[in-house]
Amino acid sequence: MDLGLTERGRALRDAVAGMVREHIAPLDAEFHAETGGTGNRWEHTPRQTEILDSLKNLARDRGLWNLWKTHLPSGPGITTVDYAWIAEEMGQSWLAPEVFNCNAPDTGNMEVFARYGTEDMKARWLEPLMAGEIRSAYLMTEPDVASSDATNISLHCRRDGNQWVLNGEKWWSTGAGDPRCKVHIVMCRTADDGPRHAQHSMVVVPTDTPGVETLRGMQVFGDDEAPHGHMHIRYTDVRVPLDAMLLGEGRGFEIAQGRLGPGRIHHCMRAVGLAEKCLTLMVERGAARQAFGSDINSLGGNPDRIAEARIGIEAARLMCLKAAWVMDQGDMKAAAPLISQVKIMAPRVALQICDDAIQLHGGAGVSQDTDLARIYAHLRTLRLVDGPDAVHLRTVSRAELRNRGLR
Amino acid sequence: MDLGLTERGRALRDAVAGMVREHIAPLDAEFHAETGGTGNRWEHTPRQTEILDSLKNLARDRGLWNLWKTHLPSGPGITTVDYAWIAEEMGQSWLAPEVFNCNAPDTGNMEVFARYGTEDMKARWLEPLMAGEIRSAYLMTEPDVASSDATNISLHCRRDGNQWVLNGEKWWSTGAGDPRCKVHIVMCRTADDGPRHAQHSMVVVPTDTPGVETLRGMQVFGDDEAPHGHMHIRYTDVRVPLDAMLLGEGRGFEIAQGRLGPGRIHHCMRAVGLAEKCLTLMVERGAARQAFGSDINSLGGNPDRIAEARIGIEAARLMCLKAAWVMDQGDMKAAAPLISQVKIMAPRVALQICDDAIQLHGGAGVSQDTDLARIYAHLRTLRLVDGPDAVHLRTVSRAELRNRGLR
Amino acid sequence: MDLGLTERGRALRDAVAGMVREHIAPLDAEFHAETGGTGNRWEHTPRQTEILDSLKNLARDRGLWNLWKTHLPSGPGITTVDYAWIAEEMGQSWLAPEVFNCNAPDTGNMEVFARYGTEDMKARWLEPLMAGEIRSAYLMTEPDVASSDATNISLHCRRDGNQWVLNGEKWWSTGAGDPRCKVHIVMCRTADDGPRHAQHSMVVVPTDTPGVETLRGMQVFGDDEAPHGHMHIRYTDVRVPLDAMLLGEGRGFEIAQGRLGPGRIHHCMRAVGLAEKCLTLMVERGAARQAFGSDINSLGGNPDRIAEARIGIEAARLMCLKAAWVMDQGDMKAAAPLISQVKIMAPRVALQICDDAIQLHGGAGVSQDTDLARIYAHLRTLRLVDGPDAVHLRTVSRAELRNRGLR
Amino acid sequence: MDLGLTERGRALRDAVAGMVREHIAPLDAEFHAETGGTGNRWEHTPRQTEILDSLKNLARDRGLWNLWKTHLPSGPGITTVDYAWIAEEMGQSWLAPEVFNCNAPDTGNMEVFARYGTEDMKARWLEPLMAGEIRSAYLMTEPDVASSDATNISLHCRRDGNQWVLNGEKWWSTGAGDPRCKVHIVMCRTADDGPRHAQHSMVVVPTDTPGVETLRGMQVFGDDEAPHGHMHIRYTDVRVPLDAMLLGEGRGFEIAQGRLGPGRIHHCMRAVGLAEKCLTLMVERGAARQAFGSDINSLGGNPDRIAEARIGIEAARLMCLKAAWVMDQGDMKAAAPLISQVKIMAPRVALQICDDAIQLHGGAGVSQDTDLARIYAHLRTLRLVDGPDAVHLRTVSRAELRNRGLR
Repeated sequence: MDLGLTERGRALRDAVAGMVREHIAPLDAEFHAETGGTGNRWEHTPRQTEILDSLKNLARDRGLWNLWKTHLPSGPGITTVDYAWIAEEMGQSWLAPEVFNCNAPDTGNMEVFARYGTEDMKARWLEPLMAGEIRSAYLMTEPDVASSDATNISLHCRRDGNQWVLNGEKWWSTGAGDPRCKVHIVMCRTADDGPRHAQHSMVVVPTDTPGVETLRGMQVFGDDEAPHGHMHIRYTDVRVPLDAMLLGEGRGFEIAQGRLGPGRIHHCMRAVGLAEKCLTLMVERGAARQAFGSDINSLGGNPDRIAEARIGIEAARLMCLKAAWVMDQGDMKAAAPLISQVKIMAPRVALQICDDAIQLHGGAGVSQDTDLARIYAHLRTLRLVDGPDAVHLRTVSRAELRNRGLR
Repeated sequence: MDLGLTERGRALRDAVAGMVREHIAPLDAEFHAETGGTGNRWEHTPRQTEILDSLKNLARDRGLWNLWKTHLPSGPGITTVDYAWIAEEMGQSWLAPEVFNCNAPDTGNMEVFARYGTEDMKARWLEPLMAGEIRSAYLMTEPDVASSDATNISLHCRRDGNQWVLNGEKWWSTGAGDPRCKVHIVMCRTADDGPRHAQHSMVVVPTDTPGVETLRGMQVFGDDEAPHGHMHIRYTDVRVPLDAMLLGEGRGFEIAQGRLGPGRIHHCMRAVGLAEKCLTLMVERGAARQAFGSDINSLGGNPDRIAEARIGIEAARLMCLKAAWVMDQGDMKAAAPLISQVKIMAPRVALQICDDAIQLHGGAGVSQDTDLARIYAHLRTLRLVDGPDAVHLRTVSRAELRNRGLR
Repeated sequence: MDLGLTERGRALRDAVAGMVREHIAPLDAEFHAETGGTGNRWEHTPRQTEILDSLKNLARDRGLWNLWKTHLPSGPGITTVDYAWIAEEMGQSWLAPEVFNCNAPDTGNMEVFARYGTEDMKARWLEPLMAGEIRSAYLMTEPDVASSDATNISLHCRRDGNQWVLNGEKWWSTGAGDPRCKVHIVMCRTADDGPRHAQHSMVVVPTDTPGVETLRGMQVFGDDEAPHGHMHIRYTDVRVPLDAMLLGEGRGFEIAQGRLGPGRIHHCMRAVGLAEKCLTLMVERGAARQAFGSDINSLGGNPDRIAEARIGIEAARLMCLKAAWVMDQGDMKAAAPLISQVKIMAPRVALQICDDAIQLHGGAGVSQDTDLARIYAHLRTLRLVDGPDAVHLRTVSRAELRNRGLR
Repeated sequence: MDLGLTERGRALRDAVAGMVREHIAPLDAEFHAETGGTGNRWEHTPRQTEILDSLKNLARDRGLWNLWKTHLPSGPGITTVDYAWIAEEMGQSWLAPEVFNCNAPDTGNMEVFARYGTEDMKARWLEPLMAGEIRSAYLMTEPDVASSDATNISLHCRRDGNQWVLNGEKWWSTGAGDPRCKVHIVMCRTADDGPRHAQHSMVVVPTDTPGVETLRGMQVFGDDEAPHGHMHIRYTDVRVPLDAMLLGEGRGFEIAQGRLGPGRIHHCMRAVGLAEKCLTLMVERGAARQAFGSDINSLGGNPDRIAEARIGIEAARLMCLKAAWVMDQGDMKAAAPLISQVKIMAPRVALQICDDAIQLHGGAGVSQDTDLARIYAHLRTLRLVDGPDAVHLRTVSRAELRNRGLR
C-alpha cells in the first residue's frame, strides 16, 4: 500500500505546486474582483479571459493538462495516489483546477463521455472539453425533492416518436453559469414504477436546445460564485434525439455511480489543500500579533488548536491517499465505502481548521481581507455536494455490517 | 431567583412577539432586497425609509419603544429578565431591534451618554437617539492590533491647546454606514505609559468633523450588511473640544466595562431567538420532505439532532435569564463572569443548531432561499464581537479561581 | 419561574450541606474500606452498621429525614426546586443519600407504595422504609432483552388459582444486595398480546419468598458497589397472593411512568453535585502542582477547561431546577420531556468535567488516591440507568415535533 | 511511503492473529480469574504459570518471539510498519503481548540495555529478558511532582564513594508487581542546577537491592491489574555500584527520548486493535438485540456511530502506520511529532468507540460480562501514560511552528 508519489508523480506535483504558487494564486483575487465588470456577472471580462487563457496555455505547455485522467491510456501516466497529492496543490487556489483542466464537473462529465458516449458525443463534447475550449454541467439535484435520496429525482422524460421530451427543474447545476458551458448531462425520470434504481436515465442536452432556461444563480452564503455559478435551470418541453440517452433507459444510476467516485475524492483532496492553507494563514497571523503579553500562537488553547489542525490534516490526507490507492487497485466497489469515509471526514477536518483560523484572526477572519470566509462557505457546501454526510454515513455503516455478514 | 416574566413583562413580550410576527418579519426580505436600489448601498431607498418609519411609529404607538432601558427611572418598568424574554423575540427578525429602538450599538451608546455624558451631549445626541431620529457608532476595534486585548488599542489622541486631536484607524464600526449615523464614541490612546488600563480614553466625535473618513464596509462572509454596515474608518487630524472626552483622561476602560455588559447579553438573548428560528426551519423542512422511505425528521440521527437543539436552546436561555437576573440584583461585578459564560455558550449553541438546520435543508440551506446562511454568518461573527470566546473563557476561568482564593 | 430556594429550603439546604461536610463525607472512605470485612461483601461490618445508624440518627434529630417527600402532605414543606438544591449537596458524598433516607431506589419505591399500595403494604413496607429500617429493590431490567425498550420485558407472571406465579431473571437490581433489603417491586409480563403498553404488571415480592435467588452482583467498571449492589436475580416459581399486584393487571407502565420521573431527576441533581466536586478537585490539584514554569491551572488549554466546566455546571443546574419547577406546577406530562433533557445533559456535563479532572491529575486521577475514577464509573452508568440517552433523546424529539403539530 | 505489509510481515501477522484467536484469547478470562488464587494477588497461581509458559513456548516454537526488534540485526527481519500491523493483533488480547515477549515496559527496557548497557548488564538482564525468563520495570513517574514535565523528577541520587545512593518514591511502575520482575531502570536526579535537561540520570537497580520497597499497587478504575501491576515503590538508601548508571551522569533525558518513541507507538498500535475489538462487540450486540421494532444497529443514530467508528479506526491505523514508516526511514527526530500525533489520536478514537460500544450494550457494557469496561480503563490510562495528551499537543504544535520558522 504505497501512498507516496511515484517519481513521475512527484515531478508533476512539484511543477503544479510551483505554477500554483508563482502564476495562479497571485491572480486569484484579481480574477475574482473582475466578476461583473461587463455589467453581467455571467460573462467573462476581457481581463478574465486573458488570465484564464494565458494560464491554461502555460499549463498545456508545461504538460500539466488533464492530469485527472489517471486511469486512461491517453492519461498522464500517474496513479490516483499521485493525483491526490497533485489535487491538494490545486486546491490552494480557486482558479487552479480549471487552469489545469481538472475542475468539477467537467472531469466527471469527460469520464462519462469517454465511457458511455457515442462517437458523435466524443467528437462534439469530449474533445473540446479535453481541450478546455468548452465547459459542461451535470444536472442532478432538484429543488422540489430531497435529492439526497436520488431515487426521488423527478425531472420528467418521456419518449415522443424519435425524441425524448424533458420537463422539470434542476438546481445547483455547478458551472452552468459559465458562458462557455455548452452541454448538460441530465439525470431524469423515465419510469414511475419498476425497481427503484431502474427508473432513471441520463440524457445529454446541448445548452442551446429550445426550452432550456436558466432561472438564476444559487448563492452559497450569499456568493453566487459567478461566472462559474450553481444554476437553477428549467426545462420546458426540451427535445433531444433518442441517441442522446446514455447507455439506455433506466441505467441512470449505473452511470451516476461510476461518475461520482473519482469526483468526490477530488473535492476531498482539494479540501486537504485548503486545510493546509487555513493552517498557514492561522499560524502566520498568530505569530504576527501580540495579546496579553504573548504572541497569539502561544496563547491559551491556541497551541492545542495548531496541533489538532496538524493531526487532522495528516489523518485526512492519509484517508484520501488510501482511498486513491484502493481505486488504483481497480476495485471500485471496494473503494466506495472508503470514498464515503473521506467524503465525511475531509470537509469536517478542513472546516474545523478554517473555523479556528477565522477565530484566531478576529474580525479579519470573517471579512474580505482574508480568503477564510470564502473557504468556509466552499467547504461547508462540500458537506452537501455529491451526497450529504448522512448518506455517506449510511453507506459506510452498511458496508461495515455487510462485510461482517450482519444485517 | 425568578427567571420568569413579570406581568408587565409578559404583556410587553406578547406585544413585541405579535408585532414581529405580523408586521416586521414579513417586511424583512423586502427591506433587504431594496438595499442598493438608489445606486448607493449606504443610503436608504424611499421604500426602506417608509418601512422603517412606519414600523417605528407603530412600535412607539404601542408603547414598545426603548424597552432596553430596564434599569432607568424613565424606562419601561420591566426587569432585565423580562427584557431577555423580549429580546429573544426581537432576535427573530433582522429589522426588529431597530424598529423597537433596541439595536446595537445605539443602546450601549445611549447608556454611555446617559451615565457619563455632559448636558450638552444629552441634548445633542442622547435625545435624538432615544427618539430614533439619528444613529450612532462605537469605534473600538482596530485593524492593526489584536483588539481582543483592548490595551493594544492605538488610535492616537493628544491634546493640542483646547482640543483633542485624533489620528488612526478603526474597523468593524457597526452602524457607521447608516446614513443617519451622526456621532461616534471612540476609544483612543491618550498615554503610552502608566498603568495598562489607564492609558485609554473615550471621546465623542460628530461624524461630520473634518478628517473623519469612511474607507469601506467590512464584509461578513461576503455580506456588507448595508446600509447599517460595519465600517472601516480613518481619522486624520480629527479635532474635538476638550469636553468631548467622557469622564476624563485615562478612564476609557471604566466606561467600556460599564457599557459592554448589557450589550453583550442583548446579543445573546437575540441569539437564542435565532436558535429557535433555526430549529423551526429545520423541523418544518424535515416534516415536509421524504427520503429513503421516511420523512427526514425521522431519519437516522435527525431525531437526536432535534432533541439536542431543544436541550441547547433551553440551557442557553436559562443561562441568559440567570445572568439577567444577577444584573437585576445590581451587582455588575458578580454578573460579569455570568455574562461571559453566556457570551461563550449562546452563540455556540445557536451556531450548532443553525449548522444542523443547514445540513438538513441540503443545498437550500446555504442558499438565498432560506435565512440560514445569513443567520450563520451573523452568529459566527458574534463569537468575535464584544470579545472573542478566548477572552471570555479567560474571564470565567479567572473568576472561578478567584472565587476559591486560588492563584 | 422562581428557581431559587425558599426560606425553609435554604435552611434545610445549609443544614444538609453542613452535615455532609462535617459528619458524612469524612466517613465515606472508612465505610467503603470496611466492605467485606466480615468475609462477606454483602453484609455490613459492625463498624458499617455503627456509622450508618449514628449518621441516620443525627439526620433524624436534625429534621433532615425524608426530604424527598416534597409533594406529600406529610413531607418537609419544601418545593422540588428546593430539593434539587439539597440533592446536589447530598450528591457530594456516597453515603449521604441513604443517611438522609433519600436514596434510590427506596424513594421511588416509597412513592409507589404511597400511591398504589394496599393498606397492608403501607404498614408492612412503606412504614419501615420511611423509618429507614429496611431497604427495597426495584426489578426492571433483564439480561436477555434490550430493556431500553421496556415493552421487551419478559419475566413471566401467570395466575394460578389465587396466586401469581413468577419465573425469569432480572439484573441491575440496585440495592438488592443490601442485607436489609426486604422487598422487591417487580415489573413482569402478564400478557403476550393486546396493546403493547398493557401487557405488563407490577408485583410486590418479599425477598424471603421461596424461589427468589440472588445469582451475583453486577460490577460497574469492576466495582460491585457492595454491600448496596446491583444484583442479578432469578425467580423460580415464585408465588405471591393476588393482591400483591399493584393497581391491577396490565397497569405496569402506568406505575413505572409515575415512578421514574422524580427518581431520574434526583440522580441528575446529585450528578451536578458530583460535577462541582470534580471541578473542586481539579482546580485544587492544578493550583498545587507546577509544570513547564507555571501552575497547572494556568497551563495551555487548562483555563479553558476550567471555564467550560463552570459553564457546564451552571447550565446543567439550571436545567435541573427548571425541570423541578415544572414538576412543582403539578403537570408531570409537561415535565416529562424536561426530565429527559436533564437526564441526557447532566451526566454528560458531569462526565466531561470528571474526565478533565482525571486528565489534569495524571496517574492519580485514575487511581484509588482520588475519588475521580469511582465518580466516573458512577456517572457513566447514569447514562444507562433509568433509560439510556437514546431513549431520552427520542422522548425529547417526539415532544418537540408533537408540540408543533408535526409528525 | 509503503504502509502495507511486506511478504514476511504478512506471514507473521497472520500467524500472530491466528495464535491470538485460537490459543491466547480463549485463555484471557481464565488467567484473569485466577489472580489472587494463592491468597496473594502478586504471585502467579500454578495454572497461571502453566498458561503463560505453554503459550510462550508455542510462540517461540512458531517463530513469533521478540518481533518488536524490527530494527535490530538479530531481529525478525520485518519493518516497523509490519510490526504495527502485528501489534494491532496482539492488542486484542490482554495476555498476547507478554506471550510474544512484546510487552511494555520490557521491550523498551530491552532496547535500553541493548543500546546503552554494559556487557555485564546485557548478560545479566538483557539475555533473560529476551528469553522471557525475567521481567523488568521502568521507574519514571513520581507521586509528589507533576511528572508530565519530566524535569520535575526528584528521586535523589548522589555519589558516595564508589556507589550511587538513591532515595525517593516512584509510582505507576508498570510490571513491577510481577513476581518475576528482577530489575528496575530508574530515572533519578543527580544535579539540582545546570541545564534543565542535564540534571537527570538513568540507573539500573536489581529489585533485591536492600532499601527497595514496594508500597502498594496503584489501581486503574479500581483494578490493580495484578499480578503485573503498577506499583508504588520507595527507595531508602538504595546503593548500587558506579557502573549501574547508564551512559553517564546527566544523560537521563537522552536515554528517555530514545526509549519512549517505539514504546509509545506500540501502545497506540495495540489501541487500534482494541478499537476494532470494541466495534466488533458493538455491531454483534446490535445485530442480536431488538428494540422499538428494529435491530439496535439500525436504530436512530447507531448507524452513524458505526460509520464514525470505522472512519476513526481507519484514520488512526493510517496515522500509526505513517509514524512507523517514518521511523523505518531512520530519522527519529522527524518521527517524534508524528508519534505524538498518534499518541493523542489513537487512544481518543479508541475511547470514543469503546464508549459507544458500552452505551449500545446497556448495563452489560459497564459490567463484568463484557471486556468493555476494562478496555475503557486501559485506554483511558493510555491518555496519561508516556506523556499526557497536553504534553504531546505541545510537541506537535512546537514542531509545526518550528518547521515553518515561526516562534
